[in-house]
Amino acid sequence: MHGLLETEALDLADPRVSELAKVLVHTSVKVQPGERVMVRADVGARPLIEEVFREIARAGGFPLLMAKWEELSRIVLLESTEEQLATPPVLDEYLFKNVAAVIVLDAPENTRALTTVDGQRRQLVAKARKPITEYAMAGGVRWVGCNYPTHALAQDADMSLSEYEDFLYSACLVDWEAARRDMARIKAAFDAGNQVRIVAPGTDLTFSIAGRPGVIASGEYNMPDGEVFYAPLEKTVEGHITYTFPAIYSGTEVAGVRLEFQGGKAVQATANKGEAFLNATLDTDSGARYLGEFGIGCNFGIQRFSRDILFDEKIGGTIHLALGAALPECQGTNDSAVHWDMICDLRQGGKLYLDGKLVQENGKWLF
Amino acid sequence: MHGLLETEALDLADPRVSELAKVLVHTSVKVQPGERVMVRADVGARPLIEEVFREIARAGGFPLLMAKWEELSRIVLLESTEEQLATPPVLDEYLFKNVAAVIVLDAPENTRALTTVDGQRRQLVAKARKPITEYAMAGGVRWVGCNYPTHALAQDADMSLSEYEDFLYSACLVDWEAARRDMARIKAAFDAGNQVRIVAPGTDLTFSIAGRPGVIASGEYNMPDGEVFYAPLEKTVEGHITYTFPAIYSGTEVAGVRLEFQGGKAVQATANKGEAFLNATLDTDSGARYLGEFGIGCNFGIQRFSRDILFDEKIGGTIHLALGAALPECQGTNDSAVHWDMICDLRQGGKLYLDGKLVQENGKWLF
Repeated sequence: MHGLLETEALDLADPRVSELAKVLVHTSVKVQPGERVMVRADVGARPLIEEVFREIARAGGFPLLMAKWEELSRIVLLESTEEQLATPPVLDEYLFKNVAAVIVLDAPENTRALTTVDGQRRQLVAKARKPITEYAMAGGVRWVGCNYPTHALAQDADMSLSEYEDFLYSACLVDWEAARRDMARIKAAFDAGNQVRIVAPGTDLTFSIAGRPGVIASGEYNMPDGEVFYAPLEKTVEGHITYTFPAIYSGTEVAGVRLEFQGGKAVQATANKGEAFLNATLDTDSGARYLGEFGIGCNFGIQRFSRDILFDEKIGGTIHLALGAALPECQGTNDSAVHWDMICDLRQGGKLYLDGKLVQENGKWLF
Repeated sequence: MHGLLETEALDLADPRVSELAKVLVHTSVKVQPGERVMVRADVGARPLIEEVFREIARAGGFPLLMAKWEELSRIVLLESTEEQLATPPVLDEYLFKNVAAVIVLDAPENTRALTTVDGQRRQLVAKARKPITEYAMAGGVRWVGCNYPTHALAQDADMSLSEYEDFLYSACLVDWEAARRDMARIKAAFDAGNQVRIVAPGTDLTFSIAGRPGVIASGEYNMPDGEVFYAPLEKTVEGHITYTFPAIYSGTEVAGVRLEFQGGKAVQATANKGEAFLNATLDTDSGARYLGEFGIGCNFGIQRFSRDILFDEKIGGTIHLALGAALPECQGTNDSAVHWDMICDLRQGGKLYLDGKLVQENGKWLF
């Protein structure tokens, strides 16, 4: 009986994989008949790659797989000369510019596999790929990125693989149409308002968003998605904020961050752990101590902090404020090489006010 | 101790994998600095893909991975409309025409995975890919194909995986420079000769190769390689031949094939198994009963028949004669949609004569 049960277990494909593929192909990049779609994926995402291919084909599209894995990248990084690494990847660029959409599936086997690779070598590759990145950023191609559950991702999130699977699918398998409608109501309210006040344990911060429209992220760019974000008026930020979750930048974790703002600038920055790194980063340039983004996490399918900013900033009942570069979509002007999202959990004792009116309490909307 | 030994075993990479990568990159396609190289590979060949990437990078080249596996192909074949399948793969074509070399690595997990897919759907894809195939065939790109050991390949060859590994590496890890010199001597002898006579149990066949130069295959096109091949003068074939190994065409096996030639034409074709299929295939068109190729197997690293023509036709001490289309490289003129290689083992009682002189006996060269 034991052997039989094992066999049965192997045959039971997780139906959430094909559900996620449907979301990526139809909700996120919305593949149309005749379109070519690049699937840039870790080979560990194989079951999801297959389902994404199935959905693209059913939509009348043409999938093209660009497979990757960490060891393969590492070999190229270590065995190539600097001249090779700095050479523009012209074939990749051609492909990016000749597909209608790109679906990136990350399924790392080891998120630290490139740790000992010289950062300068990685920078050369990033620089050589800049035309591709800029083209994608400029909206030249419809784009979505998503994780596929692996032990490595689960490990980084302090979870077992099965817990991480539940975590990821519950975050991504959302009714995105309904989520967009909910977020449209939040955006409408905040677009019509001026003054935002955030109150929580260790936090009382105000700033203006007057005249700056919010942007809804409901599954078109990242999966999971679920946030409404604004660019605060840079000089209007006053008060202090204590970030609930560890703030991670370029892999370095800073815990218990408290910022004091005057005239828009974070004039004091303290932390229980990593304070020197925090201040060094905020001193990178003149824009790094000003806010570039105010984001409202709207994905109530995400309940747990997982050390992955793409998930954490979306947790329903949290807000995040990013120090540094503003996002042009929401008419921000702050310029900086830094963009550091830090998350404040409002689910226990938090209050969100709009023009003096309480609109969210303990992470729950009141309208 | 048990656990420790298991761990050690997992860490022991097979050094033959990197040796094979060196052969493919340096002997077969001869990657030069600055060249872009497509690696079109089954994901099951992952260890070999990594070593091939390493060698390409070391040679100053730029590897590009196009990954594949049977289930993924099957999904596209089944989920696409006929119109989709018939659409030229323009991005693939662009890549083929913009790389200097292509290395194909086949590592099937299941050689029969596409068995139940409608042959017409596969034909549509093959037809849509014709510009790529023709470009490659016409020498537009340096090309080599190779297997990576898998259970599926071992199973088809009636071997265990470890036996198949030994089989494959012994066939491919040859001193190709020395092999080329040996084959050059064989070519020189046959180029200078006219009349070939093959004598073996159930076989006594003569034909002329006068004026037609031989071609040496020493690792540039297929790996394993190792043959010298000619196009016989079509009308000069007389006598009879009994093929030792089963002859396989499009997956169908015919055993105990005996052909009787008169004036170049196989006027009688009998078999112990599959005789009707044999004759139906030879009646495909007017060229299918004439010989298109006389090949001399020169790879003495291959000893066993494995049901894979790329290996079998190279077995040292065998010859093969192909019914149907001649290979243009050796100035053959026979035209046919068929090209069916059949192998005659000369290692037990076989004799090869050139202009009446015995040059090979029991599969061993006498010069």
